[in-house]
Amino acid sequence: MPMPSSVQAGMGQLAIDRSFSIAVAGFHDSSLDRALRVFVDELSRQTGIPLKTKSASANPTLTITTDHGREAVQRLSEDESYELTVTGSGAKLTAPNPLGILHGLQTLLQLVEITPTGFVVPAVAIKDQPRFPWRGLLIDVSRHFIPFDVLKRNLDGMAAVKMNVLHWHLSDDQGFRVESKKFPRLHEMGSEGLYYTQDEIREFIAYARDRGIRVVPEFDIPGHSHSWFVGYPDLASSPGPYAMEGDGLDPIMDPTRESTYKFLDKFIEEMAKLFPDSYFHIGGDEVDGKQWDANPQIQSFMRAHGMKTNQDLQAYFNQRLEKIVSKHHKIMMGWDEILHPDLPRTIVVQSWRGQESLAKAARQGYSGLLSYGYYLDLMWPASRHYAVDPMDTTKSDAAATLSPAEKNRIVGGESCMWAEWVTPENIDSHIWPRNAAIAERLWSPQEINDVGSMYTRLNAVSLDLEWLGLTHRSSRMHMLHRMAGTEDISALRVLADVVEPVKDYTRWDDSKGAIDFHAPLNRMIDAVYPESDRARQFGDLVQAYAQSGYKDKAIEEQMRTWLVLWRDNDAKLHSLLQRSLLLQEVNPLSEDLATTAAAGLLALDYLDKSEPSPEALRTLQLAMLDRTRMRQADLFLMVVAPVEQLVKASAGPAQHN
Amino acid sequence: MPMPSSVQAGMGQLAIDRSFSIAVAGFHDSSLDRALRVFVDELSRQTGIPLKTKSASANPTLTITTDHGREAVQRLSEDESYELTVTGSGAKLTAPNPLGILHGLQTLLQLVEITPTGFVVPAVAIKDQPRFPWRGLLIDVSRHFIPFDVLKRNLDGMAAVKMNVLHWHLSDDQGFRVESKKFPRLHEMGSEGLYYTQDEIREFIAYARDRGIRVVPEFDIPGHSHSWFVGYPDLASSPGPYAMEGDGLDPIMDPTRESTYKFLDKFIEEMAKLFPDSYFHIGGDEVDGKQWDANPQIQSFMRAHGMKTNQDLQAYFNQRLEKIVSKHHKIMMGWDEILHPDLPRTIVVQSWRGQESLAKAARQGYSGLLSYGYYLDLMWPASRHYAVDPMDTTKSDAAATLSPAEKNRIVGGESCMWAEWVTPENIDSHIWPRNAAIAERLWSPQEINDVGSMYTRLNAVSLDLEWLGLTHRSSRMHMLHRMAGTEDISALRVLADVVEPVKDYTRWDDSKGAIDFHAPLNRMIDAVYPESDRARQFGDLVQAYAQSGYKDKAIEEQMRTWLVLWRDNDAKLHSLLQRSLLLQEVNPLSEDLATTAAAGLLALDYLDKSEPSPEALRTLQLAMLDRTRMRQADLFLMVVAPVEQLVKASAGPAQHN
Repeated sequence: MPMPSSVQAGMGQLAIDRSFSIAVAGFHDSSLDRALRVFVDELSRQTGIPLKTKSASANPTLTITTDHGREAVQRLSEDESYELTVTGSGAKLTAPNPLGILHGLQTLLQLVEITPTGFVVPAVAIKDQPRFPWRGLLIDVSRHFIPFDVLKRNLDGMAAVKMNVLHWHLSDDQGFRVESKKFPRLHEMGSEGLYYTQDEIREFIAYARDRGIRVVPEFDIPGHSHSWFVGYPDLASSPGPYAMEGDGLDPIMDPTRESTYKFLDKFIEEMAKLFPDSYFHIGGDEVDGKQWDANPQIQSFMRAHGMKTNQDLQAYFNQRLEKIVSKHHKIMMGWDEILHPDLPRTIVVQSWRGQESLAKAARQGYSGLLSYGYYLDLMWPASRHYAVDPMDTTKSDAAATLSPAEKNRIVGGESCMWAEWVTPENIDSHIWPRNAAIAERLWSPQEINDVGSMYTRLNAVSLDLEWLGLTHRSSRMHMLHRMAGTEDISALRVLADVVEPVKDYTRWDDSKGAIDFHAPLNRMIDAVYPESDRARQFGDLVQAYAQSGYKDKAIEEQMRTWLVLWRDNDAKLHSLLQRSLLLQEVNPLSEDLATTAAAGLLALDYLDKSEPSPEALRTLQLAMLDRTRMRQADLFLMVVAPVEQLVKASAGPAQHN
Repeated sequence: MPMPSSVQAGMGQLAIDRSFSIAVAGFHDSSLDRALRVFVDELSRQTGIPLKTKSASANPTLTITTDHGREAVQRLSEDESYELTVTGSGAKLTAPNPLGILHGLQTLLQLVEITPTGFVVPAVAIKDQPRFPWRGLLIDVSRHFIPFDVLKRNLDGMAAVKMNVLHWHLSDDQGFRVESKKFPRLHEMGSEGLYYTQDEIREFIAYARDRGIRVVPEFDIPGHSHSWFVGYPDLASSPGPYAMEGDGLDPIMDPTRESTYKFLDKFIEEMAKLFPDSYFHIGGDEVDGKQWDANPQIQSFMRAHGMKTNQDLQAYFNQRLEKIVSKHHKIMMGWDEILHPDLPRTIVVQSWRGQESLAKAARQGYSGLLSYGYYLDLMWPASRHYAVDPMDTTKSDAAATLSPAEKNRIVGGESCMWAEWVTPENIDSHIWPRNAAIAERLWSPQEINDVGSMYTRLNAVSLDLEWLGLTHRSSRMHMLHRMAGTEDISALRVLADVVEPVKDYTRWDDSKGAIDFHAPLNRMIDAVYPESDRARQFGDLVQAYAQSGYKDKAIEEQMRTWLVLWRDNDAKLHSLLQRSLLLQEVNPLSEDLATTAAAGLLALDYLDKSEPSPEALRTLQLAMLDRTRMRQADLFLMVVAPVEQLVKASAGPAQHN
């Protein structure tokens, strides 16, 4: 995963054992050496066989052939293709440059499996290249600071699924996370001490490059920039002072003063040197114009320049900004809102609004990439992200009607990990494994879209990712232990396995005031996976049972096993839930799981006897399920829907068809 | 854990929440600041509450009072005591110096628990100081190289259980792990590229110091020094060349040449500067004299100096060495073998031989510490280590007969993690949690020795240790996943939970030749815990059942649940075991677990009915159990013994008493 564009299974298999060796034919440089070292380390970890990086052998297990080196700065259009041929006697990996080799090595790692004869790679012939050249993950490090070790293991995960852009959301209202030597009050006063030094950033970019990943910085302006104003209040559209403790305002930059552009020119000059990538993201989203409206000087500036709306003023700002960004040899990027006919066609638009917005930009001559549908913080199931395609051809005004040249302007997509509700402890499980489904959407041919196959492979990838040090599975266990304060958390896991967090942006209600970014994130909602595999699998069982006409006894037996476990779980869990403040809120969920499961078992009894359940009973059950499906402790019990299907089916054939 | 020397429970409890703050009264320095920062980080991780290091508050949660700073280099006799008083309104931690504060903070962390009102510390008054000043863990990084991140998390674990010495076994036949600027061929040719740079070592020593841990380096000479000779063959007693690939020889240093001492003088001068601790360990164990016997020049030297045995020659070597070590302002340490009347009383003896050896040394005026009984690589249960006391008073010639002054010379002990069979992946589970039992033996009063209480607390500590990043639990899961190649490893865990590795040094049989230190350690024996908690708990159930006169139905029910799980497990596991080369060897164990459990169930049936089992059946069962208790795949099935007890008991009261 992602599925290669062409796979042909062969006969036999290649053994991976202590004799493993690599020969490099053709072009060779230090970047390739590092790639092989990382690969051999990962292969060693995965198999537990201590392999050496350098091995000369007359009969190498793996032969690497590449033609030329990588660009000094990884380019969007750089060739990422590779060919991998594995036979019983050896593997051959060929690519135009080491970037393709990196991808091919990841494919090879995923093919390694344990068999009765040991670790092997099955014989196969693969030709592969990405569908889109821009396959990114945005990580917001402003709302909650994410340290380098966490970012690095996520880079490893990205490389494993062939993503090639880390979009680093480095500043927002809640924090400015980069050391600036020219304007040190940015990080000194705008970060509460949590920022990256320039040396660390350079080392990190090198780490990313060794994994074929570009690092695109985002400094979000003119909105989302409260943290800038703590140190430099003159940039804001209202006089300061500003403090890090949120004051509920949405301060924005003043685009009417020349001093703002002088500041940004120097700042972007510094950052353009620090970040080698050709693209520079200036954010530009969700500009709340209240401060502009309230500032008479800004209002008179707008009148003087014939600007009617705040959008016009932002477009003016972006035009000025674009000139600065270009002057420092970067291509400017921003969110949908920066799109304006006055801006040059060289800018790149990142769409959180959708494929229509993207198609519209493409028609106007702008390049763009999709993030709508790829917001990992919305807690959607992988399948829902998987179904989102940057080239959506189902909507009349979207990609279907684009010319080939216009289509080429849609360069890919980016998943987004906004960090309102994640910490270093649980960010991995909010990104993985779901992000791998998005990675496949962006790499593999459009016609690869079987959801069942996706989930099977996602499961396998999820296990592999733990070898890279990602904690998307293990961290949940730690958090459950913390909540429980005990060693035995088996009953708590049973409950955690069937709940999901509330979806979209419903966790927080703005009427409660601003989000407190220093609040502990140690509740059940913070620990559980965004998607319940267990509930999905149970739903699949119910579907299969329905398809058998409610006759398949083997499936019925499997369902019963789960339902009995769930019905009896609350009794085991009850006293534990009382003993912990952090668990008391899930007490109703635990009770509801028991009730729901009991209803399911009763429905199965009627279905098993092919006897319709009494309507009065069913009505009561359905009313009860309407209650258990409700949000509690910001969680949903995900097995209610499939149980409801069973209850409805228990009405008998007349009713349920 | 370790249990403080005096604990008085109070009334009420102190809440640990977002308002947590620390005030420092009295002495204050940067070492104390760092200690508090580490503490606050750990408390944040443990509770999931993001706490700030610096908090001023009129009503501090924790008040720290200390009198003076730490010694520039931590001394053996430095005061480590502290007093901790917790009431509903606050905690007070007082210690003469920050070293005691460090220990008190660890006690406080262990006291934090989740309750219906949130995280709290129960009210308590503790006075605490260590029984022994030297409480060490030896980690061998020569046989298998252990990188810094793994060592650091083990330092964190040591600090958590108040151990204060890392004995770093830095050189042995299989590798020389320290960069030497004076003799660079030592690390360049003797380490296969796996060594620590001097900068890294300095940073590591500072990390240890911040946790109250001294770092004592060991360079094992004149034996165990093959790796030195690869770069410097002239040091050896036979002409070279020597290669890293073991040649089965046991080469040793030539103590008769002046050039050897010139080399060691320069080398020790360099290392004495690098390692600030007052003690310098020269190994000196297991000197195989074959090379000395075979070298005519050495033989004539011995004759010329009136030496009769190789021991005499080693004593001569040690005398010369001691002068060098003293010259560089260090106290020389070595294993039992260095004990010789010609050596000054300032040296310290580390005993792998036992308490008699230690007592003998103390009587002769030497200081010493115990490692006999604390070898973690022998795969003993925690209870067996726990029973070993440096002041063993049960043996006639040991500590019982020592004068107080002689007793004072027994300064403590060290657990030893020899690394023949551990890698960075599984070293944590070979050290933890068992090491905490040894830590308690060395810290707590001698009369603290209730095994049941120890295991209860060991369990709690084991969970806490995972917050420090130790992988003693999680790594087993990864390794089982690797062996299985599947996501669902529940049945495999059931088996892994009831086996233990073979004990002592029986894993390897020297008749097979030298150990291959590059072999994969990815078998079941490498993954499982040294001690099966499950089997011990089952054994405890059988004991309790016996004590009830085989009448307690609740206990019987618990035993049945386990036995049924074990009896039915092989059916679930069978096909998985066939599919993996790494698991095939445990197939017989899985089958034996089923057979053993079935025998246990049958015995319970007879006991339940108070009817003696037929003798023929019992004889057959016992014969079968004699088979299932046998070593298989280098593992033992640990539930055989308790099941055997049930089978024997099923003979009825006449027989089983």
